[in-house]
Amino acid sequence: MEWIKAGKNKKKAVVLLSGGLDSSTTLYLAKSRGWDVHCLIFSYGQRHSREVKSAVSIAKKTRSSYSLVNINLPWCGSSLIDKSKKIPPGKIGRERIPSTYVPGRNTIFLSYAFSFCEAKKIPAIFIGANAVDFSGYPDCRPCYYRAFNRLLEHASVAGVKIVTPLIRKSKRDIVLLGHKLGVPFEMTWSCYRGGDKPCGDCDSCRLRAKGFEDAGLADPLVKTDSE
Amino acid sequence: MEWIKAGKNKKKAVVLLSGGLDSSTTLYLAKSRGWDVHCLIFSYGQRHSREVKSAVSIAKKTRSSYSLVNINLPWCGSSLIDKSKKIPPGKIGRERIPSTYVPGRNTIFLSYAFSFCEAKKIPAIFIGANAVDFSGYPDCRPCYYRAFNRLLEHASVAGVKIVTPLIRKSKRDIVLLGHKLGVPFEMTWSCYRGGDKPCGDCDSCRLRAKGFEDAGLADPLVKTDSE
Repeated sequence: MEWIKAGKNKKKAVVLLSGGLDSSTTLYLAKSRGWDVHCLIFSYGQRHSREVKSAVSIAKKTRSSYSLVNINLPWCGSSLIDKSKKIPPGKIGRERIPSTYVPGRNTIFLSYAFSFCEAKKIPAIFIGANAVDFSGYPDCRPCYYRAFNRLLEHASVAGVKIVTPLIRKSKRDIVLLGHKLGVPFEMTWSCYRGGDKPCGDCDSCRLRAKGFEDAGLADPLVKTDSE
Repeated sequence: MEWIKAGKNKKKAVVLLSGGLDSSTTLYLAKSRGWDVHCLIFSYGQRHSREVKSAVSIAKKTRSSYSLVNINLPWCGSSLIDKSKKIPPGKIGRERIPSTYVPGRNTIFLSYAFSFCEAKKIPAIFIGANAVDFSGYPDCRPCYYRAFNRLLEHASVAGVKIVTPLIRKSKRDIVLLGHKLGVPFEMTWSCYRGGDKPCGDCDSCRLRAKGFEDAGLADPLVKTDSE
């Protein structure tokens, strides 16, 4: 994990921050390893736009600089964007990719991050992608990130690379790591349905609940809810 | 060039249309091979926004459907976007990448095109990239497109591929091909400086002039200008 260390001279890195559990833990991890972080936060019409507010709050709390990037994907047809569609109930270990898949989303996010880093000569993009407890999206798998880094070898003059420190971690291990690093879990947001409270039923809520349960920790969001 | 044929059942393809010589020729080529084309036209704050108008006119002329995609790259610092900078005079065969390089531009364009195709199950993205008579941008080279297609093998559920029919053609050959296909050269726009008339001095104008000269054809844009 060479790329997890910033070296003696505090190097700049971009962290893709969604405001969820994984990206927030990634942000805290990058900072703990000495990276001088700039967060990129994407607003892409997601119905759980509350995560954007969480991301901004967490960037501010860590005193990281950040940019908000607005993108428009009217063609996507994902239930994560199209409010006329229902978010399906969670089903961990499903065989088909669920309707919450946003075609090309991570590819677009990483392209913007690459453009940003290439322009500013920032060597690393951190993304909290995870391929253990996940919804089966193709752009969360290790082979996808290896291929993207090979693309950047040809695309980048500045030598930008993508770092995926959580890619092989279970949700339990991510919760434990975040806990150790002091991630303010109560400020994060994971629920796809974007209501006032986490629904507890969507893929994202179920994966989060599994992580906290397996870690033997209470999720402050759910705790607050039940008190 | 398997991907240049649409097959008996008219298949859908996306063409990235900038309104310049190469992308317009690519559009006419794809249509001539039987593809049912949808054009993606990007507005990214380029100072030669006139090319967007050209692209829309050419899409309409060929009766192709099209989408205009607005993107914002405030961090880029390219002289192609930042009007406080000067477009450098053209120098074909230069060693350094010129200031007109927009970091990550083609990667972002292709990511949007991939998202569009992935959502709509369109198998092919045509792009008029060219690595013979070009300005040395890294994202115009064959190795970049090979790597992007390898990325798509992992990223795409729908099996989207990128097609670069002009990648190894000289500007002369592109002009001759466009001429044969009936590309309305007078409607295209290449000049980076974005004035009322082509400047004749920037990289893009010089490459275009070389192409027409080597092909033994007159550029209708320049002809109109001198009459």
